[in-house]
Amino acid sequence: MKPTTVIVSLPVTDLDRSLRFYRDGLHLPTPDIDESIIAFELPNLSLFLIEHSQYTAYTNRAGVHAHNAPAAGACVLSCAIGSKEEVDDTLVRAETAGGSVSGPADYYDGSYTGYFSDPDGHLWELVFNSRTEAAAASGAATEKDTT
Amino acid sequence: MKPTTVIVSLPVTDLDRSLRFYRDGLHLPTPDIDESIIAFELPNLSLFLIEHSQYTAYTNRAGVHAHNAPAAGACVLSCAIGSKEEVDDTLVRAETAGGSVSGPADYYDGSYTGYFSDPDGHLWELVFNSRTEAAAASGAATEKDTT
Repeated sequence: MKPTTVIVSLPVTDLDRSLRFYRDGLHLPTPDIDESIIAFELPNLSLFLIEHSQYTAYTNRAGVHAHNAPAAGACVLSCAIGSKEEVDDTLVRAETAGGSVSGPADYYDGSYTGYFSDPDGHLWELVFNSRTEAAAASGAATEKDTT
Repeated sequence: MKPTTVIVSLPVTDLDRSLRFYRDGLHLPTPDIDESIIAFELPNLSLFLIEHSQYTAYTNRAGVHAHNAPAAGACVLSCAIGSKEEVDDTLVRAETAGGSVSGPADYYDGSYTGYFSDPDGHLWELVFNSRTEAAAASGAATEKDTT
């Protein structure tokens, strides 16, 4: 099995609510929206959020009955973040936009780490450390080079 | 929120069983294995499979209690595949290695599509069409160029 690319799909109960949360709240770029799917292109992740009835039609086609979808905490989407401030700022944005934040970010194993759940319970982790800082700096340099 | 990279984590009940399924059965490359995590680097997806008790410790840290983890069909990992034969072959490998296959691959919306679930119920989709064929050919050319 040698996939040339992989897309991760998650179910959501209300597509408009998800759009408000991710696009308007978190300011994630949304390159493609159709009637039942919101598609995000993140670094190293293509993510589809699919409206619940379409999602269950999808999994039913595979012979899988996803009774408990969306399932809170069924997967974790862990993001490398370039600064402590961006971790804190994202948690505030997530809570303001209707997400759930269990508490402030804190150091864990040497990384500044925060968590939020989106309105469907999909769990995101935000991680800042010296490596994620370097990656962000390198990414910023690349962006400058190509503009 | 501008992540520099994203990692998707899923819980599994038996790490050895998952390793046998993905590495020995499907022949996915496994760059990193530690006591509680199997890490896969796939095109456009970094995937961690985390042993269940470690996974729930992880989500508990986020204030999320993932009672139903692993949850069958909670997400779909959809793979672009370069040939019909590879789709068919992967379904056979998945079933032989202890996965679940609902039926043979078939055409859906012009794409040759098959599904399997891993031993924990994590659902994978295999998609072949003219675009995935072109991507595989382009990838193969790139591999040749760089070797």
